[in-house]
Amino acid sequence: MTPRPWALSRGATLVADGVRFSLWAPNATRAAVRLDEGATHPLEPVGAGVFEGTVREARAGTDYRYVLDETAVPDAVSRHQPQGVHGPSRVVDPTAYHWRDARWRGLAMADAIIYELHVGTFSDEGTFGGVIPHLRGLRELGITVIEIMPVAEFPGSRNWGYDGVHLYAPQSTYGGPEELRALVDAAHQEGLGVVLDVVYNHIGPEGNYLGVYGPYFTDRYKTPWGSALNYDDAQCDEVRRFIIDNALYWVTEFHIDALRLDAIHGIFDFSPRHILRDIAESVHQQAKLLGREALVIGESDLNDPRVVRTSDACGHGLDGQWADDLHHAIHAALTGERNGYYADFGGLAPVANALRTPFVYDGRYSPHRKRTHGAPATGVPADRFVVCIQNHDQVGNRASGDRIAALAGFSRSRLAAALLLLSPYVPLLFMGEEYAETNPFQYFVSHGDPELIESVRTGRRKEFEHFGWGDDVPDPQSPDTFDRSRLNRSRLERAEHAGVYALYRDLLRLRREERALRPGNAEPRVAHDESDGWITLELVSEQGRPLMALFNFGEVDRQVPAATSAPGRWKLLLSTDAAAYGGKGGAPACLPDGGGAVATVLVLATSASVYAREDDR
Amino acid sequence: MTPRPWALSRGATLVADGVRFSLWAPNATRAAVRLDEGATHPLEPVGAGVFEGTVREARAGTDYRYVLDETAVPDAVSRHQPQGVHGPSRVVDPTAYHWRDARWRGLAMADAIIYELHVGTFSDEGTFGGVIPHLRGLRELGITVIEIMPVAEFPGSRNWGYDGVHLYAPQSTYGGPEELRALVDAAHQEGLGVVLDVVYNHIGPEGNYLGVYGPYFTDRYKTPWGSALNYDDAQCDEVRRFIIDNALYWVTEFHIDALRLDAIHGIFDFSPRHILRDIAESVHQQAKLLGREALVIGESDLNDPRVVRTSDACGHGLDGQWADDLHHAIHAALTGERNGYYADFGGLAPVANALRTPFVYDGRYSPHRKRTHGAPATGVPADRFVVCIQNHDQVGNRASGDRIAALAGFSRSRLAAALLLLSPYVPLLFMGEEYAETNPFQYFVSHGDPELIESVRTGRRKEFEHFGWGDDVPDPQSPDTFDRSRLNRSRLERAEHAGVYALYRDLLRLRREERALRPGNAEPRVAHDESDGWITLELVSEQGRPLMALFNFGEVDRQVPAATSAPGRWKLLLSTDAAAYGGKGGAPACLPDGGGAVATVLVLATSASVYAREDDR
Repeated sequence: MTPRPWALSRGATLVADGVRFSLWAPNATRAAVRLDEGATHPLEPVGAGVFEGTVREARAGTDYRYVLDETAVPDAVSRHQPQGVHGPSRVVDPTAYHWRDARWRGLAMADAIIYELHVGTFSDEGTFGGVIPHLRGLRELGITVIEIMPVAEFPGSRNWGYDGVHLYAPQSTYGGPEELRALVDAAHQEGLGVVLDVVYNHIGPEGNYLGVYGPYFTDRYKTPWGSALNYDDAQCDEVRRFIIDNALYWVTEFHIDALRLDAIHGIFDFSPRHILRDIAESVHQQAKLLGREALVIGESDLNDPRVVRTSDACGHGLDGQWADDLHHAIHAALTGERNGYYADFGGLAPVANALRTPFVYDGRYSPHRKRTHGAPATGVPADRFVVCIQNHDQVGNRASGDRIAALAGFSRSRLAAALLLLSPYVPLLFMGEEYAETNPFQYFVSHGDPELIESVRTGRRKEFEHFGWGDDVPDPQSPDTFDRSRLNRSRLERAEHAGVYALYRDLLRLRREERALRPGNAEPRVAHDESDGWITLELVSEQGRPLMALFNFGEVDRQVPAATSAPGRWKLLLSTDAAAYGGKGGAPACLPDGGGAVATVLVLATSASVYAREDDR
Repeated sequence: MTPRPWALSRGATLVADGVRFSLWAPNATRAAVRLDEGATHPLEPVGAGVFEGTVREARAGTDYRYVLDETAVPDAVSRHQPQGVHGPSRVVDPTAYHWRDARWRGLAMADAIIYELHVGTFSDEGTFGGVIPHLRGLRELGITVIEIMPVAEFPGSRNWGYDGVHLYAPQSTYGGPEELRALVDAAHQEGLGVVLDVVYNHIGPEGNYLGVYGPYFTDRYKTPWGSALNYDDAQCDEVRRFIIDNALYWVTEFHIDALRLDAIHGIFDFSPRHILRDIAESVHQQAKLLGREALVIGESDLNDPRVVRTSDACGHGLDGQWADDLHHAIHAALTGERNGYYADFGGLAPVANALRTPFVYDGRYSPHRKRTHGAPATGVPADRFVVCIQNHDQVGNRASGDRIAALAGFSRSRLAAALLLLSPYVPLLFMGEEYAETNPFQYFVSHGDPELIESVRTGRRKEFEHFGWGDDVPDPQSPDTFDRSRLNRSRLERAEHAGVYALYRDLLRLRREERALRPGNAEPRVAHDESDGWITLELVSEQGRPLMALFNFGEVDRQVPAATSAPGRWKLLLSTDAAAYGGKGGAPACLPDGGGAVATVLVLATSASVYAREDDR
C-alpha cells in the first residue's frame, strides 16, 4: 500500500454526517463543543487527553467554541477566526476551493529570488486579495518567490504577525483562509512560489488560549518574546504534533511552497531528535506524497551550519537558513553605524568575508555578543543561505524604521543592490526595496488590552536604549504608525526611484542569464583594499562564462586592480552608476586585458560594475 | 614542537619570584590580592576582564583573598579552602607531592568494576586518608575502580558533595588537596583506578562567590538545583574555560582516571560545539600528552546515545554514560514499587529488555514522564554504559534512604547482584552493597545559613510528596542523619552478610575469568516468561566459552527452559542460593543437555544460576 498524504485530524473536520471535532485538553475533565447558533454537544474522552465527537447539525460555516470544564475557548486548531482572536472558531471546508495550480511543482532554493512582504502595508487594500494585482509586476521584475510575513490570527488588524495566537487561522482582516488560498493560487499561476513565515518559538500575548488546553509552554527555557513552547518537557508529544501538523497544514491545504521558521534560536529542544528535524522531514515527506516540492527555511541567529546540514552530517536537514552577516557587513560599511550588533562589523573586510563564506562569525569572538560565535559552514552549498540588505527586522527594528535608501541615499542603495544580487547566495528583497522606498517600516500593533499596549510601548522604548537611539520611538499602537509604513508606489514616477527599479530588474535578469550567478555554481574569489575602499569578486563557473564584479565603496572614482584567474577580453555588463539607473554615467566600457593576471580599471565612486569574459561564449 | 600538556594558568601559581595571581572578573574595575598575613597588592588589568600580578612575599601556604573593587572574596580557582567555603584561599604547590604511581596507565571502560563511595560516611575517619586502609580489601573483592562522590569544597563537614562551591578545592574536612593526592596514589599502587564525580550543571547555594566575579550563570535555562551555568550566553568563553580547566586540573594535578559528570541533562548549551564534547576532547588530549588514559563518563537522564557516540557519529564523544533503566527495572521487579519513576517499570519484561539493550525507553512513551523518551543505542558498544542496582541517588533519594537489602531481603539482593554482574555493561556498586549493608544512606547537609537550612528541609519534604512517601523525612541538617548513613562493617561478622560478600567476590571473579562477561564481547540473548517469573540470558562470545544465566524471580523452585544456541555439556558455575552465600543450597549441578536447543532445568526460588559450556575449553 502506498502511504497516503497526511491530513489534519484535530480540529473540525467535515464528515459525511456532520462535523467531527477532535481536541487535546489533558487538563480538562469534560469537554464539549458549543455552536454559536445551536446546542452544546458533549465530546467523548478517547484517552491521552483527547476528546472527540461528531455533531450532525454543524457544517462548513458553523461558528463554535469548545467548553473545557466551565471555560469556553476558541479551537486551538481553528481554521478561521472571523471575529478575531477572542471570537468563535468557524468550521472551514478545506476542499471547497477550486485550485488552478495543478501543474505547479514548487521551487528549488537555487532559483529563489525572495520578495518579503507584509500583507497589511503592501497594498492599498491591506489584504491577501490586494497582493494579487501586483504579482505580475513582481514576476516581470525578476522575483520568483513571495514571502508573506506571518498571517496566523493576531489581535486587531495591525500587526507584523509575530503576535499571532491561532496558528491555523489566516488573519481574518486580511481575508481569511479562502482569500489566502486565492493569493497562493494566483502566485502559482503567475509562476511565483510562496514562502509563509511561521512562528514556532512563542505565541502572542493576547488571545492565547493554548494554556487552557494543556502544557503548550515550559518554564525550563526563556525566550525574549514570551514563554517557550514545550518541545521536550512532560506532554510535549502533542505539542510537537500540533506544530508539525501546522507545517503540514500550510503545505497541504494552502499549497505553500516553503515555510520560513521564525527565530529558531528560540526553539529549545533537548530531545534526541530536534523538532526542527522532525518538521523538515515531515514536510519533505508530505510534499513527496503530494507530488511537489516543499522547503523549510529557518531564521537563525546562531551561525550554526548544523541547521542546514543533512541528518547524515549531524544536521537538522533544513533546506535553507537566513545568514545575516552579509546584511550587517554591508549596512555597517554603507552607513558607518556601529551601535548594537553593528559593533561587530565596519569597514570592507567583513563585506569581503561575507561574500566568501556565509558566516563572518564562524567561531570568532564577537565583541557585541561578548562570546565566541558560530561555526564554519564548510562544505555546505551556497544555496542554503538566504541573504538580504533589508528585511522587516533590519528595517523595522530600528527606532524609526528607516530603510537603507533613507539612511544612505541612492548611490549607496544601488551599490548595496549589486552586492546583494551578485552575491553567491539566495537573495531576499524587502517590499519597496526594488524602487528605493523611503517610507519607513515601523513597529505597529493593535492590541485590545490596555495593559499590554502600555507594556509594548515601554518595551519598545527600552529596547532602543541600548542601541542609543533615544526616546523618539513611534507609538506602536497608533494607526499613524501603521499608515506611515505603507508602500508609496507613486515614488516610481520619480527618476531616481525608477532608476533603482531598472537596476534591480537588470541585475535580476543577469542572475537568470549568467550561470555563474546561480548559487552554488561558482566559487567566489574575493579581494579587497580597506584603505582604497574597493572589493573585487570573481565568479568562475564551469556552467557559464566568468564574471567579475568591482565594488567601489569610496567617494571618488578609483583605479581598481582586478586580479583574474583567466585573463582575456572582458565586457562591461552593467554599472550601477549608469545614467539609466539614476547615476552620473561614464563607466569604462570594458575591463582592459591585463595581459597577465591583474587588470587595472576605473570604477566610479560608490558604485559597482560587472564584467563578463566574452571569449567564453 | 611537540605540544606541552595543559597547566592551570588562572588562580595562584608558584613562580621563581613569588606567586603569580590571575583572575577573571569582567565586572570589576579594580582587583587586588590581600594576603591574610601581609599586604594588599593591586593586580594589573591585562584585558578581557583578566587581572594579573606577581607577589614576592607570597608562597605555598599563604592564605589570601581577592578584593574586587570593595568586595573581598575567595579565589574562584582556589586550590584549597582550609577554613571552609567562606574563608581565605591558600596557595598550593601542586608539584610538592611525591607521586609513586609512575607506572600506572589508567583504565579501560570494559575493565571497570566501579565502587561508588562517599568519603564522609565510608570510613570511621570520614576523610580521604580513611579510605586508604580499605583499598586492598576492595581490590581483593574484585573492584577495579573507586568512584568518589564530589569533593569540591562544600559548606560545613556533612554533605553528599553536590553543594560544592569551590570547584578546584578538595574538601578541607576530608583532608584537602594533599590527602586526596595520597588517596589517588595509594589506589594506583593497589591497582585501582579513581573516578571523581564533578558537578558542572549548577553550583551550591552557600559560599558561591562566582557571581561576584562575572556572569557564571544564565537565566535562559532552569535547572532543578539552582541557576544554570552559562555555557552559551554573553561572556561564556571564560566560563567554559573555567569548567574545561577544572576537568584538566583533576586529571593533571590529581592523576584522576575518569570524571563522572553529574546530571549532564542539566548542562544546557546551544553552541555549535557542546561543552560536553569540548570537555571530552580536552581530557583525552591531555591524557595522551601525560602518557595515560583519562575518561569522561556522564550521568544522563536523557537515554540519548548521542552522549557516547563519537563526534563522527554526531555524538559528544564521552567514554561512558549512566544507564538507569536496568536499575529501575530490577528495583521495580524485586520490590513491587510503582511510585515515581518506577511507574514506568514493573514485571520482568523491562528487566529482560534492559539486559538486551541499555535503554528500555528508547523512543517509547513513558507514562511517568508523560512523553516519548530516549532513542535507540544502536551500534553503541556495551562498555559505554554504567549500570547499577544501587547508587547514592537511588538509595539516598528515597525519603528514608533505604538500601535494597533492607527493602527486599537477602535472597532478592543476591538475585539483584547476579543480574548486575552478569549484565553485559559496566557495573557500579554502591559502598556497602558488597555485604548487603542495611544502614540507610540518607540526605544530609551542614549548611551555615539558617534560611537555607529551612528551605532544604522544606524542599526535601516536598520532593517526597509526589512519591507518596509521607512526611517522615529525616532532618537533613541533623548530625544523626549523617551518622545513621555510615557503613557498619561489623555486619560482615554475620553469616548472611558474609554470604553476600562471598557472592560478590565470586561473581566478580567470574567476570574476570569468563571472557563472555567482558562488556562488548558477547551479544546477549535474552528470553523471559512473565507469568512463570524467569529470565534466561545466554552470552556467546568468540573469545571465551558460552555462558548461560537463569534467573528465577518467583517464590517457588521452578523448571526453566534454557534455549541455547549451542547445546552441549553445561556445568554449573554458581548459584546465588548456594549455602556459601547464605542460601538454602541444593541447586542442580549442571544444565542437562537438551539434545536439541532447549534444556529444562530447575532453578531455586528467587535466585540466579550461571552455567558454562565445558567442551569449549
